Amino acid sequence: MEGKEEDVKLGANKFSERQPLGTAAQGDKDYKEPPPAPLFEPGELKSWSFYRAGIAEFMATFLFLYITILTVMGVNKSPTKCASVGIQGIAWAFGGMIFALVYCTAGISGGHINPAVSFGLLLARKLSLTRAIFYIIMQCLGAICGAGVVKGFEGSQSYEVLGGGANVVNHGYTKGDGLGAEIVGTFVLVYTVFSATDAKRNARDSHVPILAPLPIGFAVFLVHLATIPITGTGINPARSLGAAIIFNRDHAWDDMWIFWVGPFIGAALAAMYHQIVIRAIPFKSRA
Amino acid sequence: MEGKEEDVKLGANKFSERQPLGTAAQGDKDYKEPPPAPLFEPGELKSWSFYRAGIAEFMATFLFLYITILTVMGVNKSPTKCASVGIQGIAWAFGGMIFALVYCTAGISGGHINPAVSFGLLLARKLSLTRAIFYIIMQCLGAICGAGVVKGFEGSQSYEVLGGGANVVNHGYTKGDGLGAEIVGTFVLVYTVFSATDAKRNARDSHVPILAPLPIGFAVFLVHLATIPITGTGINPARSLGAAIIFNRDHAWDDMWIFWVGPFIGAALAAMYHQIVIRAIPFKSRA
Amino acid sequence: MEGKEEDVKLGANKFSERQPLGTAAQGDKDYKEPPPAPLFEPGELKSWSFYRAGIAEFMATFLFLYITILTVMGVNKSPTKCASVGIQGIAWAFGGMIFALVYCTAGISGGHINPAVSFGLLLARKLSLTRAIFYIIMQCLGAICGAGVVKGFEGSQSYEVLGGGANVVNHGYTKGDGLGAEIVGTFVLVYTVFSATDAKRNARDSHVPILAPLPIGFAVFLVHLATIPITGTGINPARSLGAAIIFNRDHAWDDMWIFWVGPFIGAALAAMYHQIVIRAIPFKSRA
Amino acid sequence: MEGKEEDVKLGANKFSERQPLGTAAQGDKDYKEPPPAPLFEPGELKSWSFYRAGIAEFMATFLFLYITILTVMGVNKSPTKCASVGIQGIAWAFGGMIFALVYCTAGISGGHINPAVSFGLLLARKLSLTRAIFYIIMQCLGAICGAGVVKGFEGSQSYEVLGGGANVVNHGYTKGDGLGAEIVGTFVLVYTVFSATDAKRNARDSHVPILAPLPIGFAVFLVHLATIPITGTGINPARSLGAAIIFNRDHAWDDMWIFWVGPFIGAALAAMYHQIVIRAIPFKSRA
Repeated sequence: MEGKEEDVKLGANKFSERQPLGTAAQGDKDYKEPPPAPLFEPGELKSWSFYRAGIAEFMATFLFLYITILTVMGVNKSPTKCASVGIQGIAWAFGGMIFALVYCTAGISGGHINPAVSFGLLLARKLSLTRAIFYIIMQCLGAICGAGVVKGFEGSQSYEVLGGGANVVNHGYTKGDGLGAEIVGTFVLVYTVFSATDAKRNARDSHVPILAPLPIGFAVFLVHLATIPITGTGINPARSLGAAIIFNRDHAWDDMWIFWVGPFIGAALAAMYHQIVIRAIPFKSRA
Repeated sequence: MEGKEEDVKLGANKFSERQPLGTAAQGDKDYKEPPPAPLFEPGELKSWSFYRAGIAEFMATFLFLYITILTVMGVNKSPTKCASVGIQGIAWAFGGMIFALVYCTAGISGGHINPAVSFGLLLARKLSLTRAIFYIIMQCLGAICGAGVVKGFEGSQSYEVLGGGANVVNHGYTKGDGLGAEIVGTFVLVYTVFSATDAKRNARDSHVPILAPLPIGFAVFLVHLATIPITGTGINPARSLGAAIIFNRDHAWDDMWIFWVGPFIGAALAAMYHQIVIRAIPFKSRA
Repeated sequence: MEGKEEDVKLGANKFSERQPLGTAAQGDKDYKEPPPAPLFEPGELKSWSFYRAGIAEFMATFLFLYITILTVMGVNKSPTKCASVGIQGIAWAFGGMIFALVYCTAGISGGHINPAVSFGLLLARKLSLTRAIFYIIMQCLGAICGAGVVKGFEGSQSYEVLGGGANVVNHGYTKGDGLGAEIVGTFVLVYTVFSATDAKRNARDSHVPILAPLPIGFAVFLVHLATIPITGTGINPARSLGAAIIFNRDHAWDDMWIFWVGPFIGAALAAMYHQIVIRAIPFKSRA
Repeated sequence: MEGKEEDVKLGANKFSERQPLGTAAQGDKDYKEPPPAPLFEPGELKSWSFYRAGIAEFMATFLFLYITILTVMGVNKSPTKCASVGIQGIAWAFGGMIFALVYCTAGISGGHINPAVSFGLLLARKLSLTRAIFYIIMQCLGAICGAGVVKGFEGSQSYEVLGGGANVVNHGYTKGDGLGAEIVGTFVLVYTVFSATDAKRNARDSHVPILAPLPIGFAVFLVHLATIPITGTGINPARSLGAAIIFNRDHAWDDMWIFWVGPFIGAALAAMYHQIVIRAIPFKSRA
């Protein structure tokens, strides 16, 4: 019952966690700050769960690209957008897949399915460098295979005419606009991931751990609603790379840097925002 | 297990909370009515969590305006609505962002992201006047910045042609219609917020605290479905102000009062309805 | 922890509740079958919670009609459906409002917002006859007021040209088709309500009480997706009555009986299916 | 409280389940691996819950086909897709019904509503062969009745002109493309089902048992977004069979094998992936 009493604060002021300005956050000792993950963890490399997690990331990113790029192809192929699921349907495909895949793989690999997410969590020392690199490689391989299967279904020629689901900065926008859109979009996603995986809030608010995959999926959906007109929406370097490798046209490669630099900057800003502003961890460790 | 027994009453009659007419609600002592928040709480101003909450409100309203106004721009820019996410996509952007942001910030600031919500909760004495004013200022600043970034991406000229996402009463409707639509729309939102943050119901019904951000987001989505044709849907004075300041055309300023007076009246009515009818608090305090 | 063990059976066979054919269900004594509600409960009439529940039903049905009929008006008024939220947006308005309103009022009145739901739960003896009649009256009054406010906003002439959101059997379908569509549609809704409020399943499956308002809202959304082309979808006599009274044209009144008889038959079938097949209550009481 | 501590790992590395490569998974003894279901369980045939489960599968598949095929008819009948719920609305109808029906029947029959799901769970030995065959027969009967009722409403002639919701490989795609799309699509669905019903993860991650019906419904929605242009999306042999029997035209029968072979292969692959890679069950039983 007393666990429930903790939940009733949504919308109310949070006096119980009030603390004098400039001192470290304290009190709330009902949760244990997990220690930062080491950069290199040799033991991991000998565990089956490490490789299984990599396989799960590969499979999730494979299915993510397969469903989303196939949806994009269907919309582009349609004589009129009205006779397809439409641009909104594309946004649902990206966001919905992230919801379902985070739900399925959160307990196996953490459910990143996105190098920018792995990078952000690495900066927050929530996983080791070894694991982050392994995940990113598996994500990129999965994305390439997923886009490849779609090309197989659509046929090589048709796939190229329809744009292959590749990310490019659209006419009417500068490279700077595209980069900015990727930065803020990835910030929205990675900030939601941090909120969903915050050990302290998990221990206190019942909606945080239970709903977690849903707002993460919605964040992806929402960023697509907003930025499909600008870049087609990357916010996931593996998705952009996989589509570009299979599409393999020059203009997809010209902008590729935007879809790696933007998401990584956005993820780093989200990690900083969460660790410094929300969790005030630097101030705590000094205490 | 006995906690579960309490949940089974959805759809059934509620005899356990039956009480003679005119007497104060009693029994249900499994929850503690939190004392009303003081109007001025000097201690707050010295706590880091107070400023952190303000920063979280700023950031949430910034991201809210960024994603939503960018979606509106994309739809307005499209040669045909069918080749965009459509009006329904705009409604999803507003509602979905509120869902994701309430999920992320509920534990930090209460997740208001809306001066009308802060005002309603202030009337119900769920936060101090100091905090309400601080939140409202931060929300307005965040909204201005969010709309400003969108203008940066779209270019000044294009932004103005496309209407800048500003709220105005549309042709075919009177100012009174617009005011009424804002009042009832904000009532729907703030009543949902009160239902989601009711300490008594949190202690009894398991779906209330866990789903909370979802119906709040849906309330925003639904009001947009209904009133976009009338006013573009404000129900959030910070959103209307931010868009108007960045758009900065006369006809957006002419109707600005509607998007402050309407939401504040709607929020006050929702607070009264919840405190007087649903919680019967005046009758209780008399007892 | 052992409570969690109970949850893992989704998708698996249910041997633990196996029982010889023809005998009464037994075992599962981890929940208490609530006794049937009396037909007349004089004590209710003296309790404030009884009247508060009626007010909550009034308010919920008021807001339900307001948002949904306003959405219908917006779609019908639009020069092309593409420039509105579309028929799918109408379905979301109906389903989404039921989700939000059931979430908000489940703990106050049971969250019926629909005479067919009250009727079905009455047949299952989950509320008294007095309460059912009181709810139905309040729901109809709320629906009339909600549609009336929409007429006020749209203007009398415009409202009538746009059809007023009234339910009629559309061209190309017989009265029998319309009646059948209302029966099966209401069956889907009321069966979902029974599943969500099953005391036995609440005690066993953790997803049942927590998600409850969501599948109920989705049921309404789905029936609208399917039957808007046939009747505009009633499955809620208060909604059909409120729209018809405010619209007040002959052809809306000609079909009115379909939108009362159909939902009540559908609700009765759902109550029978749940009590006889799923809960096997007649066989139990014989034991 | 310690149960909550277990939830905080989403997004983090999972060192607690680290184990040396090649050894069997061990530790995590907080859950009990349920024993494999026997192939033939004579006792089942004498239990009322066995027949009740079959009736629930019949009813769920009946309602599933009724709502979804009626939605397809409404979209096909509309002069322009924009004046209907659109292709995206069809995808919502399929996915949303699976969400609502899994929610309602998970506690009665496991909520399969799909022979491919029953087949996949049979391979994983989560239900007996007797039960799987009984379920598949009831699902097919339910699907035939559901499509039949839609034909009754639409009229025989109209139903055939509109395609009857039958699955065929569309122009521009080979039979191999169709088979591949069915295999991968069913893999997505059945893998989600396995993730949602994993006893080990249920015991550890609070979001798994509570959200379960939602990602399963979303999986169906997402596969429809992607593969409606290819085959109309089967991934459910009962749905394809029911629509084909009622439609009864040659070209629906020509491709029928694809909608049985594809889903069964996809389900088998998902069962293998989950049991071998995710759960590593073969390695455990050897230990």
